[in-house]
Amino acid sequence: MTVITLTTDFGPGSHYGGQMKGVISSRAPRVTIVDLCHTIRRHDIAQAAMIIASSWRFFPAAAIHIVVVDPGVGGGRQIILLTVNGHYFIAPDNGVLSHLPLAHSLAKCFIIQRPDLYLKPISRTFHGRDIMAPVAAHLASGGQPADCGPEISPRRLITLPLIPPPKVKDGQLHGIILDIDSFGNIITNIKAADLTPLSGPLAGRLNNHKITLMAESYEQAAPGRALLIINSSDTLEIAVNKGRAADLLGAGIGMPVIIEAGGRI
Amino acid sequence: MTVITLTTDFGPGSHYGGQMKGVISSRAPRVTIVDLCHTIRRHDIAQAAMIIASSWRFFPAAAIHIVVVDPGVGGGRQIILLTVNGHYFIAPDNGVLSHLPLAHSLAKCFIIQRPDLYLKPISRTFHGRDIMAPVAAHLASGGQPADCGPEISPRRLITLPLIPPPKVKDGQLHGIILDIDSFGNIITNIKAADLTPLSGPLAGRLNNHKITLMAESYEQAAPGRALLIINSSDTLEIAVNKGRAADLLGAGIGMPVIIEAGGRI
Amino acid sequence: MTVITLTTDFGPGSHYGGQMKGVISSRAPRVTIVDLCHTIRRHDIAQAAMIIASSWRFFPAAAIHIVVVDPGVGGGRQIILLTVNGHYFIAPDNGVLSHLPLAHSLAKCFIIQRPDLYLKPISRTFHGRDIMAPVAAHLASGGQPADCGPEISPRRLITLPLIPPPKVKDGQLHGIILDIDSFGNIITNIKAADLTPLSGPLAGRLNNHKITLMAESYEQAAPGRALLIINSSDTLEIAVNKGRAADLLGAGIGMPVIIEAGGRI
Repeated sequence: MTVITLTTDFGPGSHYGGQMKGVISSRAPRVTIVDLCHTIRRHDIAQAAMIIASSWRFFPAAAIHIVVVDPGVGGGRQIILLTVNGHYFIAPDNGVLSHLPLAHSLAKCFIIQRPDLYLKPISRTFHGRDIMAPVAAHLASGGQPADCGPEISPRRLITLPLIPPPKVKDGQLHGIILDIDSFGNIITNIKAADLTPLSGPLAGRLNNHKITLMAESYEQAAPGRALLIINSSDTLEIAVNKGRAADLLGAGIGMPVIIEAGGRI
Repeated sequence: MTVITLTTDFGPGSHYGGQMKGVISSRAPRVTIVDLCHTIRRHDIAQAAMIIASSWRFFPAAAIHIVVVDPGVGGGRQIILLTVNGHYFIAPDNGVLSHLPLAHSLAKCFIIQRPDLYLKPISRTFHGRDIMAPVAAHLASGGQPADCGPEISPRRLITLPLIPPPKVKDGQLHGIILDIDSFGNIITNIKAADLTPLSGPLAGRLNNHKITLMAESYEQAAPGRALLIINSSDTLEIAVNKGRAADLLGAGIGMPVIIEAGGRI
Repeated sequence: MTVITLTTDFGPGSHYGGQMKGVISSRAPRVTIVDLCHTIRRHDIAQAAMIIASSWRFFPAAAIHIVVVDPGVGGGRQIILLTVNGHYFIAPDNGVLSHLPLAHSLAKCFIIQRPDLYLKPISRTFHGRDIMAPVAAHLASGGQPADCGPEISPRRLITLPLIPPPKVKDGQLHGIILDIDSFGNIITNIKAADLTPLSGPLAGRLNNHKITLMAESYEQAAPGRALLIINSSDTLEIAVNKGRAADLLGAGIGMPVIIEAGGRI
C-alpha cells in the first residue's frame, strides 16, 4: 500500500491534520497515512526542512511526503511536487525542501497546477487540505507527476541559505546549534565526519559550560552531567544524562559551539 | 476499508485513545482508524460540536465518527448513534452532535442498547472504550444501525443553544468569538455570507483593537499586524501574520467582535 | 493484518515516532501501526510499565508492542522480546515489562541478537528505530521469536520493585498515589478488590483533604467537588467533577492515600 506522510506545524492531535486525512481517505481509500511529525514550530521552515531531510530515507520508495509549513498560504508562492528516485514530496515552494537531494540526477520538479483535482471551493488559509492532500491522493491512485503541472528545474526551487558547515579556526571546530529536540537535546551543525581530523580527547564549550565527555551512550555520564555524543542523525549532539541539556546549559538555536581536541580547551 | 475516526478530549498521544484503537482493531481488523482530533479542551462539548461539524464532510461516506467528550460518563446520559446519509456518529447524548444536520431528511437516530456487544465488565469512567468502540467495530463489520437499539427522532437529541448568528445593529455586524485555534487564530461566529450585504471597505473591532485589512492571505499583512480573513471553514477569522492573534489582541472565547463597512469605525 | 503498537516517551507528534513508522512500513508494508501512548514522562520506566500492563489486553492476539522508554540506550542493557500467549513485546531490559504476566506458563523471553536485521549503521541514541522497529517488522513478516536470539527465562528480566499493595492498619487501608493522568485524575495502588473487605460508607483522606463520596460516576459529585471512583483499570481513583483533582488536592505521585469504612475518618 502507498504511504502518505504528514509533516506539519499544526501541533499533534489537531483537527487540521484530521481533515487532511479525511480528504486523502476519501480519494485514495487504500493508502496508509502516517503522521511523520506534527511538532514543527509554527512557521519554522528551517526546522521543517531539517526534519524532512533527516526522515524521508526511512520510508519506502513511492512514499508521498506532504509538508505543510506554509506561512505564505493564499499568497503568491507556488505549490510544488518534487520527485527523487521514486520518493515524492509535496510542499509550498518556500524552502522546506532545501536539504533534500535537489541536485540528484533523478530529481524532478513540477509546479502543481491542477485545479480540477482540488477541493472546491479552495480556502484561502488551508491549501494542505484543499490542494496538497488531493494531489497526493491522485498520485497514490496512479496519477503521474507530469500530470500535476509544468516541469521546472529543481534548481529553481526557493532554498534556504545552506546550513553553514562548522569552521576550523586555531585548531578548534566552530559550529552552531541548529535545533533543540523534545528531550532538550542540543543538535549542532557538526557531523560525525567533521570530527575525524581531530585527534586526542575532544571537549566542547557552549555558553561558558565545558563538556569533556565524548560518550558512546547517555548513561556514560553521571545523572545530571553533560556529554557529547554522535546522535541518530550522525550529528554531534550535546545531551545531559537524565536531564534537559538545553535548559541546564542555557542553550538556544543559533548559539556557537566550539569543539577542540587534545585537551586544549 | 471502513474508516473509524476518533475525536476526544484525551489530549494527543494518550493511552486512552490507544486502548480504544486496541478494542477496534481486535474486533474489526480491517478498519482504518483515523485520529480526527484529540485536542478538544477537557469536557468542552461546545468545541467538540464545532470541530466534528466542520470536519465530517471531508471523510468518505460510511465513515464512523466516535466523539468522546463525555463528562457525564457513567451517569444517566444515553449513548447514541446518529446516521446522516451514510455517515455515522457515535457519541454521548450531551450536545456534541448539535451542529450536524439533524433535520436532514435522511437523519436517523438510535439509542445504543446492546450490552452483548460491550466490553465486559463495563467500567464506570470509560464508555468510549467499553461501549462506543465495540459498537463502531460492530457497524464496521456489517452490523446495521437498527441493531444497536431503539430508534428515536433526531429532534429528541440534547442540543446546545444554537450558535447565535451575528446581529446587524446601526449598520454594524455584531458577532462573538467562538474559538481560538492552535495557531492563536480567532474564530468568530460570522460566516462569509454574513458579510455579503456590507459594502465598502470592512474593518473589525475587538477588545479596543481596530483591524482594517480584509486580506486574501495572511502575508498581505506586515509581520505582527492583524488582519481579517475568510478561513478554511468559510468563517471570518482574525489573525496576525506570523503571530498569535489571540495573545496579541487579548482575545477570549465569547468576546464581542464588531464589523463595519464603509470606513465608519 | 498484524498490529504493531508504539509506546514511547517521545511526546506526541514527534518525528522520532515518525521515523520508526517509516522503518516498519518499509519492511512490513501490510502492518497496521498504532500509536498506543506517546505521553510517557521522559525516562519514566515505572509509568511506562503501568501503561503497557493496563493496555495490552485490549489489542488482538499477535499484536507486537514496542516500548521505547530507554534511558540506557547505547549502554550495556539488553533488548528483549517477550511473548505471552501470542502477544509480543519488544523493549529494553530495564523494567518496563515488569507488570506483564512474566510468570505465565506460556511466557517466553529472548535476548535480541540479530544484527543482520538491524538498520546499518546502528546509531548510539535511537535503538527504537534501528533495532526494535526492524525486529518487529521481521516478526510481523512471519519471523519466529526463536529467530531473534537466545531464549532466557522471563525470571531473568530486570523488574521494578513490585507495586506495593495497600496495607490494612487500624481498620484503615493505607495506599499511595501511583500516577496522575492527563485529566488530573489521581490513580492509586488500591484495586477494587482491596475494598471488598471494608463495609459501611467509604471515605478517603489525601493531603489533609477528606473525600466522602464513593461515586458511580463523576457527575454524582457537584462540579468542583472530589469523589472516589473505581476507574477503567479497576483501580480506585480520586477525581474532581469538572476539575483537575491533582491540582485541586495538591496531589503528587508517591503521596499516601488512606481509605476507611464506616465513617471513622
